[in-house]
Order: sequence, then C-alpha cells, then structure tokens
Amino acid sequence: MIETATLPTIPNSPGVASVLPFLYIAWADGLLTPTQIELIKTQIKAQDWLSKEERVQLCGWLDPTNPPDATTYYRWVRAIKEAARDIPDVSNLPLAELGHRMAGIANVGGSTEEATRALHDIEAELGIVGHEAVRELVVQRPETDVRDEVEQVDVESVKSVLDGRLASLRDRLRTLLSDPAFTYPDTETPKDEMREIVLGWTQLLANQGIGALAYPKYAGGKGDIEQFIASFEMIAYHDLNLAIKFGVQFGLFGGSIRALGSNEQKRKYLPDAGSLALPGCFAMTELGHGSNVRDLKTTATYDLSAKEFVVQTPTEHDHKEWIGNAAKHGRMATVFAQLVIGEQSYGVHAFLVPLRDDQGIPMPGIRIADSGHKLGLNGIDNGRIWFDDVRIPRDNLLARFAQVSADGTYSSPIPSSSRRFFTMLGTLVGGRIAVASGGLSAAKSALTIAVRYGAKRRQFGPSDRPEVPILDYLSHQRRLLPHVATCYALNFALHDLAQRYGQTPEGGDLRQIEAEAAALKAMSTAHATASIQESREACGGEGYRAENRFAHLKADSDIFTTFEGDNTVLLLQAAKSLMSGYQQEFSNLDFFGLLGKLGEQVDFRLGGVNPIKRHQSSTRHLLDPELHAELFQDRERDLLISASRRLKGRIDDGMDSFDAFIDVQDHLLTLANAYAQRLVLQSFQAAVDVIEDVTVSDLMGKVCALFALWQVEKDRGWFLEQHYIDAAKAKAIRAEVNTLLRELRVYAVGLVDAFGIPDELLAAPIAVRG
Amino acid sequence: MIETATLPTIPNSPGVASVLPFLYIAWADGLLTPTQIELIKTQIKAQDWLSKEERVQLCGWLDPTNPPDATTYYRWVRAIKEAARDIPDVSNLPLAELGHRMAGIANVGGSTEEATRALHDIEAELGIVGHEAVRELVVQRPETDVRDEVEQVDVESVKSVLDGRLASLRDRLRTLLSDPAFTYPDTETPKDEMREIVLGWTQLLANQGIGALAYPKYAGGKGDIEQFIASFEMIAYHDLNLAIKFGVQFGLFGGSIRALGSNEQKRKYLPDAGSLALPGCFAMTELGHGSNVRDLKTTATYDLSAKEFVVQTPTEHDHKEWIGNAAKHGRMATVFAQLVIGEQSYGVHAFLVPLRDDQGIPMPGIRIADSGHKLGLNGIDNGRIWFDDVRIPRDNLLARFAQVSADGTYSSPIPSSSRRFFTMLGTLVGGRIAVASGGLSAAKSALTIAVRYGAKRRQFGPSDRPEVPILDYLSHQRRLLPHVATCYALNFALHDLAQRYGQTPEGGDLRQIEAEAAALKAMSTAHATASIQESREACGGEGYRAENRFAHLKADSDIFTTFEGDNTVLLLQAAKSLMSGYQQEFSNLDFFGLLGKLGEQVDFRLGGVNPIKRHQSSTRHLLDPELHAELFQDRERDLLISASRRLKGRIDDGMDSFDAFIDVQDHLLTLANAYAQRLVLQSFQAAVDVIEDVTVSDLMGKVCALFALWQVEKDRGWFLEQHYIDAAKAKAIRAEVNTLLRELRVYAVGLVDAFGIPDELLAAPIAVRG
Repeated sequence: MIETATLPTIPNSPGVASVLPFLYIAWADGLLTPTQIELIKTQIKAQDWLSKEERVQLCGWLDPTNPPDATTYYRWVRAIKEAARDIPDVSNLPLAELGHRMAGIANVGGSTEEATRALHDIEAELGIVGHEAVRELVVQRPETDVRDEVEQVDVESVKSVLDGRLASLRDRLRTLLSDPAFTYPDTETPKDEMREIVLGWTQLLANQGIGALAYPKYAGGKGDIEQFIASFEMIAYHDLNLAIKFGVQFGLFGGSIRALGSNEQKRKYLPDAGSLALPGCFAMTELGHGSNVRDLKTTATYDLSAKEFVVQTPTEHDHKEWIGNAAKHGRMATVFAQLVIGEQSYGVHAFLVPLRDDQGIPMPGIRIADSGHKLGLNGIDNGRIWFDDVRIPRDNLLARFAQVSADGTYSSPIPSSSRRFFTMLGTLVGGRIAVASGGLSAAKSALTIAVRYGAKRRQFGPSDRPEVPILDYLSHQRRLLPHVATCYALNFALHDLAQRYGQTPEGGDLRQIEAEAAALKAMSTAHATASIQESREACGGEGYRAENRFAHLKADSDIFTTFEGDNTVLLLQAAKSLMSGYQQEFSNLDFFGLLGKLGEQVDFRLGGVNPIKRHQSSTRHLLDPELHAELFQDRERDLLISASRRLKGRIDDGMDSFDAFIDVQDHLLTLANAYAQRLVLQSFQAAVDVIEDVTVSDLMGKVCALFALWQVEKDRGWFLEQHYIDAAKAKAIRAEVNTLLRELRVYAVGLVDAFGIPDELLAAPIAVRG
Repeated sequence: MIETATLPTIPNSPGVASVLPFLYIAWADGLLTPTQIELIKTQIKAQDWLSKEERVQLCGWLDPTNPPDATTYYRWVRAIKEAARDIPDVSNLPLAELGHRMAGIANVGGSTEEATRALHDIEAELGIVGHEAVRELVVQRPETDVRDEVEQVDVESVKSVLDGRLASLRDRLRTLLSDPAFTYPDTETPKDEMREIVLGWTQLLANQGIGALAYPKYAGGKGDIEQFIASFEMIAYHDLNLAIKFGVQFGLFGGSIRALGSNEQKRKYLPDAGSLALPGCFAMTELGHGSNVRDLKTTATYDLSAKEFVVQTPTEHDHKEWIGNAAKHGRMATVFAQLVIGEQSYGVHAFLVPLRDDQGIPMPGIRIADSGHKLGLNGIDNGRIWFDDVRIPRDNLLARFAQVSADGTYSSPIPSSSRRFFTMLGTLVGGRIAVASGGLSAAKSALTIAVRYGAKRRQFGPSDRPEVPILDYLSHQRRLLPHVATCYALNFALHDLAQRYGQTPEGGDLRQIEAEAAALKAMSTAHATASIQESREACGGEGYRAENRFAHLKADSDIFTTFEGDNTVLLLQAAKSLMSGYQQEFSNLDFFGLLGKLGEQVDFRLGGVNPIKRHQSSTRHLLDPELHAELFQDRERDLLISASRRLKGRIDDGMDSFDAFIDVQDHLLTLANAYAQRLVLQSFQAAVDVIEDVTVSDLMGKVCALFALWQVEKDRGWFLEQHYIDAAKAKAIRAEVNTLLRELRVYAVGLVDAFGIPDELLAAPIAVRG
C-alpha cells in the first residue's frame, strides 16, 4: 500500500486559464526557443483584456532565465488535462481555441473574442503545430492496435511459384527437417559435440537417399544433380553446418568421384559415399593456393617399379588446408596434386587417397591436424593434411579425364594440361550453384525473422495512435523489402541455372554455365551477408540473442563469400568469360589469349541513347518490365565494350596483359555485377510472365519492379554518367521505389511466409512486448 | 626412390619445328577457338616452304574434332622448352620468331624468310599476345620476391599525429594492455569463465585508476571525461568485452551517478564505483522500450508514509533487458523509472537500487535472469531484471535534476518533464562518443591485419614474375584502402568531439555535441561493421580462423550499431537537430515544434552551381581540399533545405507531423549521413593543416583526399542529379581515386602500423605460405 501526496491546485483565474496552453508549450519539450518565449511575453504585456495582476503573474512565468518551478508546471499540466475532459474533440483544437474554451470553463468575463483573436495571432507567429501539441498532452496513447494494415497474400500459390518444378521434393525436405530428430541443440554446444550431432543428422539424410540423389541408380540415386542442389538449398534452411557437411560428403567427395571417376570407380565407391559408409574429403585447397589452384604444390609421382603413385607435400607450408571432414570423420580423400611421370609434369589431377583405417587411425605417411576453432561452422571438422611418401595404387587416379598405364604412359582425351584442368574443374560447378542456393536460404531465413518482427515491434508514433510497427517506417522498408525482392529474383535465377546444368549432357560445354554460376554465386552470397546483417540490425538487441538464429546465420554464412571461389576472383573470371564470348577457359586470370575477341567487342558500335526515353518518367513507363530489361542489358553491353576497349588499349600499348588486367579491375567488377543482375532480372521476368493467377502475377510483377528499380537507383551514378537517364528520371525512380515499398508493405509478411520455412527451423520467434 | 618413365622425343623436322609454337597455342589453355584453329590449318595448307608430308602431318594435328593425343602434346611442350634454353631473350619473342629460331636450331633448309613472314601473318590474324604465351610456357615462375615496392612511412610521426594531445595516456594503455596479465584466453573459453576473466581484467584497470578518470579527485579520478573516452578507445584494441565491461561499470553505472547525482551522492558512491568495490548496472532499456526511452514502463512511486520509493515492473514483459553486469556481478543498479507522486507522473528519473547483498543474493522483490547466449560479447553478463514492490530510501533518487522532499513535494531546476529527461540523457552523451571510438578501434584492428596480410599473400601473377601480393590488385586496394582513410578521418573527428565535450562546462548546452555524437556514432559503427567484414573477406579462409581475431571483432562489434542508440534512430534524430538549428531537444522523434525553424530553412535561397566548376577536372582541382570541403558543405546544405521543404509542405497540407516525418525518412537519412561526412572531413582537413613535417603532411593530405573523393564517387548519383558535377567530372573523380590508391599502395602497411596497435593485441599474425 502506497500513501499518495497530492498537488496543490491552480488559482481559478480565467485570464491565466486562457493562456495556460501557451505557458505549457513554452516550457515543454524544448519546443520554443528563448526568443519565442520572449515573443509570447511581449504579446501578453499588450493584452488589455488581461488584468494587470494577470499580466504580471504571466510575465513572471515567461522569463527564459528564470523558469517556473516544477510544481507550478505540473499544476498547469493538470489543469489542462482536467479541462480537456469536458471539451469535445479536444485533440484537434489549436492552442488558442483550447485556451478560449478553458477560459470559458473558468467562467471568464471580458472580451473573449478579442482574447481569442490575440491568442490565434500568437500561435501563428510561433509556427508550431498547436493541435499536435495539445494531443500530445491530453490524449492517452492507446496501447493496443487500432488498425491492422495487412493484406492477405495467397501464400500457397506464391510458394508454389517459388518452389517450381521440384516442389514436392522441397516439401518432403521441409517435413523431414522439421522432424524432432533435427531439433537444434543448445546454442552453446561445444565444437566437438556439435560435430557429432551434425554427423548424425547427415546420416539421417543419407538414410533417406538424399545424399545420393545426383548419383546413378546403382548407388541409390536418381542421377539428378538438380534435385541434389534443391536439397542442399532446403537443408540450408535448417542449419548451415549440416548443409556444408552434406555438401562435403555427397557433393565434393562423392561428387568428385561422380564427375572425375571412371565408370568402374563410380561403381566401386559411390554406393558407400552416398550411404555415408565411407566418409570422405575433398582435398584441393592448400595454404598458399586457394584461388590459384592450377599452381598447387602437392605432387603425385608415378613410381614405375611399384606401379604406384607417391603423394607428397613438398614443404611444411604446402599442406592441404580447411579440408572438411578431415579433422575427425574422413576415411578417404579426393586429393588434387600435380601428376608427375618422369621429368614431365602433367598438371593437376585428382587421386583417391585413404586417410584413416577402420579404427580412425591415420594411414602411414599421413599427418592430420585440426584447423581449430573458427568464426563459424564449428560443426564441421575442418583439418590440415600433410602427405609424406604416401603410396596409392595406380587405379586411384580418378580416370575419366586421364589414365596412366602400368608402363607410365600418360593418356587423356584432352591434350592440353590447362584445358584438361579447367574441364575437370568445370564438372564440379554444381558445388558453386549449391553454395549460391544455400546462401540464398540463409538470407531468406534472416529476412523472414526480421520482417515478421518489424510487423509486430512498435516504437514511437503519433500522439493519438499506438506506437507504430517499425515496418511502417520508410527507413525500415528500405532496409528490408528490397532484400526480400532480391531473394525472389535470385530464387528464380538459381533454379533456372540448376535446371540447365542438370540438363547439360555429359561432356557438354559448361563454360557459359560456369560463368553464370560464378556471377550468381558472388551475387547471392554477398547478398546473404548484407541481408543477414541488415536483418540482425533491424531486430535491434533482440537480434543479438543467440537463440534467434542471427548468431548462427551470420557466423556460418560468412565464409560463403570465400569458399567455392572467392567472390572477387569469381567476378573477375566471369568478366573474362564474357569478354571472350564464353570461349575462354574459366578459372584462369591471364588475358593473353583474349585480344582477338577483344577486337570484336571494341568494333561494336553503340547506338545512341534516345533523348526522350532518357527523360521519360511516368509511373507506367517506370514500371514497364521492358524498360528494366533494356536498362540492365544496355548497362552490361556498354560495360563490356568499354572494358574491352580499355584492356585492349593497354595491351596494344605494350602493357603486360596481367598488368593491364589489374589496371581495369574496377571496370571488370562493375561489368560482372551488371551481368549477374541482368541474368537474375531475366529469370525473374520470365517467371512472372508464366504465372496464370492474375493476383499472384500482379504481386510478383511489383516485387520484380522493386528489384529492378532498386538496382537502378543504387547504380544511378552510372546510368546518369552514361546518359541513359537524366536527373529528373533518376529522382522519379527513387520516388517510384518509395511508392512500391509503401504498396508492398502490407504484403511483406505474406511475401516472407511464402518462402515456406517451417517454424521449427526459425527457432524461437523474437520476443515482442505485450 | 621413385623410378621414372620418359617421353619419346619429337621427330626432328625443321618445318614442323617452326610451326610447333602454333600447335602448342592451338591446344593449350583454350586459347584458340575452333575457328582460329581452322584458320591456322588453312594457312598451313598454303605454305609452299613446308613439304607435303609436313603439311599433312601438321593438318592432322589441327583438327578441332580430333585433338592430338596427350603424349604428342607433351612432346611439343618439351621440344619448345628444350629449344628455348638455347635462345637468348626467349621470353620476349613473338610466336613466329620463336618458331623461326626453333627451325634454325633444327637446321631447317628452304626459305626461312618466307616462312617467318607467313608465321607472323598467322600470329597477327590470331590476335593473341604471342610473347606472353611463350613466356608462360618457357619461363619458370620465380618463387621469391623480385621487387619490394614498399615506401617507408615515418610511423612514429604519423602515430603521434593520430594520437594527438593524449598521446602519453594512449601509450600508457598500450603498454598496460600488452602486459601478460591481459593475455587472451583460448578462443573457445566458455561464457561463464570468460565473464570472470573479463571481470579480472576490469579490476586491473580499476587498480590503475583508469576507470575513475572522469570522476572527481576524491574518487581517485581526474575529472577528465576526454581521458576516459581515450582509454575506452585503447581498451577496445584489446578486447571488446573488456571495453564494454569497463564502459558499463565506470561509464554507465558510475557515469550516471557522476552526471545525475548530487554532490553528496557522488561522494558516497563514486569511490566504490571507480575502484570496482561496488559493481553496478545501468538499467534503462526494457524489452519494449529501447529507442523510445521516454515511454518506458517501470515505475518508482513515492510512498509518503514510509518516505520511500517503491520500484515496480508493471507486467511480465516490462522487465529491464540486456542490462550489463546484471546476470552475475552487479550489486547495485541505476534504474530508470517513471517517477509517480500521488496521481501525477513526473517522467523518467534515475534511482539507485541495490540488486544483490554481499553474498551475491538478489535483494527482496528483485528477480534476475541471465540474458543468455548472444551473438557476441559473451564475456558480458547481460541480464533481465524484474522489480516487485522493491523499496528504496528517498535519498536514492539521483538528485541533480530532481528532488522529492519528505512530504512528497517535487522540485526540479527544469520544470518540463520532457526537457528534464532530455537534459538528463544529454549528460550521458559521453557513452555514445566512447562507443563510436571503440568501433573505430575495432575497424583499425581488422584493417591492420588485412592490409599486412594483403601485402604478403600472393596469388596469380604475370608469367615471368612471382605471384603478386594481392594488395597489388586494384580491386583489393579499393576494398581496403578507402576504409583505412576513413579510419584516419574518424580518428580526428572523434578526438575533436571528445575534446569539445570534455571542455563543455557543467550545465553547458550539449545539444550540438549530442547531434554530432549521434551522427558520428552511427557513421563510425556502421563503418566498423563494413570494414571488419571487408577485412575478413580480404583475408579469405585465413580470416575465418578464430585466433585471427575476426571472429571476435565481428561478433563483439556487431551490436555497436544498435546499443547506445540504434543507428537509424540516431541519424533521424541528428537530422531533426540540424533542421531545428540544434534548438530542439534531442532524442524525440516528433516534429510538431519544428515548423517555425523549417520555415527559415525553406526560405533560404540556393545559389546556382557554377557551370565551369561543374566540369573542371584537372588533377590539381580534384585534389584541392577546398573543392572537397565545398562539395561536402553544399550537399549538406542542399539536403537540409530540400528536406525541410518536403517536411513543411506535408505538414502545411494537413499531414500529421509524425506521418510526414515517416514520409521523408529516406531524405533525412541522406541528410544525416552527409552531415556526418562533412563533420569528419572538416576535422581531418583541420588536422592536416597543422602538421609541420612536410612529408607527413603530404601523405596525410593524400589520405584525406582519398577519403573525400571516395565518398564523392560513392555518392556521385546525388552530385550528378543535383548538377554539382557533370558526367566527365564524375569519371575523372573515379580515375583520380584509382590514382590515389596506386600511389598510397606502397604506404599502406605504414599507414596501418601508425595506428600503433601492439602486436600482442593482434594475436596470431595470419599464416602466409613460404
């Protein structure tokens, strides 16, 4: 029981009552400057309808250097609040009118009309929004919601558009991963324990035949790499450790045998790889050779007398590094090494090297160290491997692209060691598409959490309404919704790419798919990093709580921009591919074979930009998909030609092609990003075109327009520089983006619901007060 | 011992020998397209100087559908390599010339002149850079460095410029934090253990008097908040957990007593706060009230009979959240609550509330829960606190800005509850400056690691030189060096701000400092997040290793963009402050008092942009600091006026000021960012102006120019839209940025060395091969 104290009441002077709202405003919230307070004082002194005593008292309360005491102030506040109870529609009154009414209640005599006019004059001179000040004071802000501006989205229809032709496989994985067997462990689970949990989950996936999907039937699979990539994408909704463990075992280790092995080797190893009976590694990266794999140092030398390969790590620093499955679980590894026969090196080849025996003891000559604690993905047992005089049978050379006969004769369907190497790497491009898709899933998870939170979490608001959901803020919409639109765009582009990759016949030309995969992997994983970060920040402190997933999403996805190809290197390679019309082998960064093709690009004449179109900025025009396609295509073509010119000019002037390449790298990166965005827009627009349901198609069209215009807004510096748009159009585009954001705001929750991420995988929904 | 196999040698035909380089190039590396191979074949068929047999054999090797076998290919390679040994200056020869010499070695007869001319023609038509192809083949790439393009930077001089007037304090902390007592624990140290280690470190700092620096002498301090902030900045080089623990105890808990307490309260509590004898908390944030503190829910009601305040958490969801020191170590808390006397609420006030007794048992009515595992900062014991009928003495109201007498009479030097609240918050602005400075330290740590790594790590390169350090890549320079320049810029701006804050007399107007602190805190912490991410990615996989610091830097700094004010909210507040000419109280997001000031802004006439200047793009002009200052100032002023117009237009049309505010948020954020950048550039330029050493001054001038032009390049869309620059100038600016990057490349390591981060605090330097 708390005993209360009360405030003394205010003297019942009608003149004072009519000026009270101004007294309040003078001292409240720093609304008025000292000069403005003086202004009120001067006005009051001149009011004849106030008595002399009233004027003296009022002016005493309007001395900027000597504020009234707190008790007096609170008496005004109470008097206004009490009077307001009896005044209808009080929250829409100007200050002067409120004062007038209060004076009436206080039973004022004298010229109220004169008084009111004077008060109105004062209010106008102060230049404040009086009725909002009144509202702030007298209206109790409601706690509960008064409006719920959410439009229903046909979530199932949108989801089926996103899921595409593999919808049933995706749903199967959603159900599987929601099973209690996949319940997340405590967020503080130590590394060693986490590794075993992730291994257990991987075994469950293997038991369901998910790991073997890309393998032939005899290995329990369906020979369908597209399904394998789709599975990886869904698994990434659950846990990125699991996705990577799954990818290492079935995609990299098993996948290398699938892509590089002879039929005999596939029959021998793939069933055990797919069932996880043979846990394996993909040992390519060395400490000094991540991006430049062609120059890696490990050797496999053919010993003619023993008919064996001898695998050797030349120096202490040339060990294999960051090899998944190596520190603990791997029994065998696909090891990439320079094949040497006699004095001749034949370039990088892949060899199957047993790592551990059945008891898990490393084989003779093999030394393994734990890569240790990492920024993320601590459920993966990355390790370092050194080979010292490790002997393996001649049959362990993966034999699809090269064989060594017993007498040491080398043969290959591809004569050039470089071309052979790039062809071998090309067959592994599925891993890159998978990583791009997994990054996209991580982004979708983060945005789902953040958009749902933003629709519930309230902070600040106008005085007479509840605090507003923070997703009502334009600033919040700008930080989240374009990323949601980009998820949609990438979703279609990556599904397209996986499908075309899956449909490429064995031995078919993969160079264009490689270039696209490189560009999209870079775009998707950079987008993941950016949108997970935005989402965490958009959830404020609650986003920092480990159980809310951002900790894992951030840490575990961070390396996606680096592995399966460093994003910067990939973009440079994609640019090179583009400049050669996809004729160049991928993965190398020399340019000396490019000149001929560059000449063709340079000779291409750019058409002028239509000056009317440059200025056109009606909503209809700005939302036209053809405009978006055109801007994206023009940008890419223009950048391709200008980059070719700059590169060729330097080489013609005698610059080494590598130095010339370095000199124009900023240009090449811009080109590659424009290329990625064009690919993605193209897929998104094509997907929208075939939607039959008009409501869904309209909504998707808007999301696609948001993606396109947002990119143009971000890159408007370039479009302005090249005169594709003028200043007025640039501003109109920004305004149109804002309009789209406001329109899509009400669909936002539905748009992320349509990603179809099971609640179990989003873990604890973020707490919101009340 | 490995027994070797050998390759059969190639037939010694001079005609074939002369064409060998072309055969090699046709099949190597995918350099030629099938069409180009056909071209060679056609040419060869026409060469009379070749015998018919030679032509048949050569054409057989030039069938795109039927490549030569691998053995043949390797024989060519070996033949070229062997011949090359006897040819001087072989690596600069065109293919044709190489062929000619090889034929000579093979003792060719016939018309070598005709042959050579024909080969030259073929080479020209192929459009490849022949001598580079030769070099790639015959030159063994050297492993060790042949050039070491690093310029000496006078690191000590630059460091002393950066350290400024508190250099000796900074050096003292560098020495202290390098002491073995501050050695990092294992990166996998569990949360509970880490909390105790961090507490121990904090005690060591307290023992040195560092925690009390801002307190009066009687509390062991120097009354110097600038020194306190500088210490925080240095501690953040060591560990962000320690910095935050230090900040919570001495800055927030002790600092709230220092800023809000009466002299008596300071004497009573500050000595124990500064020595860590009394570990404390700063309990402001509630689950539902992070940014909007003024509306928080906890109440402190005065009980007249008991002469006590009763602290109460109204509902389960109104608990204090994320309170540092609460879960484990805190004994007392500064609790922010709505003060209620009788029926009247007087707004938010701060109260000292004992949390635990000497044994660490929570006091009656206090319930504490651990906030649990977080994304980062797991060395901080964040907790939740609920108060149920918790009674504290009347004296525990922090009494500088408000007192309650025994009979329940409230008094305050500031009558308005809002203004009082904002004034109270204003006194705590030091925390915001400290967090901005700590974020900057984290960015400097990350960039130091990444730049040093980039200067050592090599990958790819021209064929005749060692692989190049990745910092030689323009793309790598663009990702790191502008961030280094931004660190320099922020360094000067934050030191300036801390100094001016420290020099503000007690009771002085802090509104401009608050606005600057908000803008710089947002800029510095966003920059930290971005540059730590860039740095991690720039170190590739090695950046992912936990011991290389990025794991901690990323995770622990992540929340810096949220706490001490959410960055978006801070930027909006700073924009509001600017629009009111710093006359508005900070921290609130209503705008209804702003109209008068908006009117002034709107009436301001913009001068036209000089069309000559818009186009001017000489290097001298582009590097002129006056140009930079002008562009930054013009942008801020222009955005201020246009934002004011848009806001006023909406309010004049009858829109609620809050809705109008939401409607122009993108504009306000742009304004606030422009404001922050102008402040930072101004400080940086002023700092460069007073450097006496010409070499240092020149170097700093370039770093400053890089910062300025980089920002203009990034924001060139805006500058183009508003016609401050034209397209040609925009392109010239980008070119100038690239030139500056190339120039500064050789100073890069020196520039980060000058941050002066002790090696001990950078932990393990990243491994580089060899």
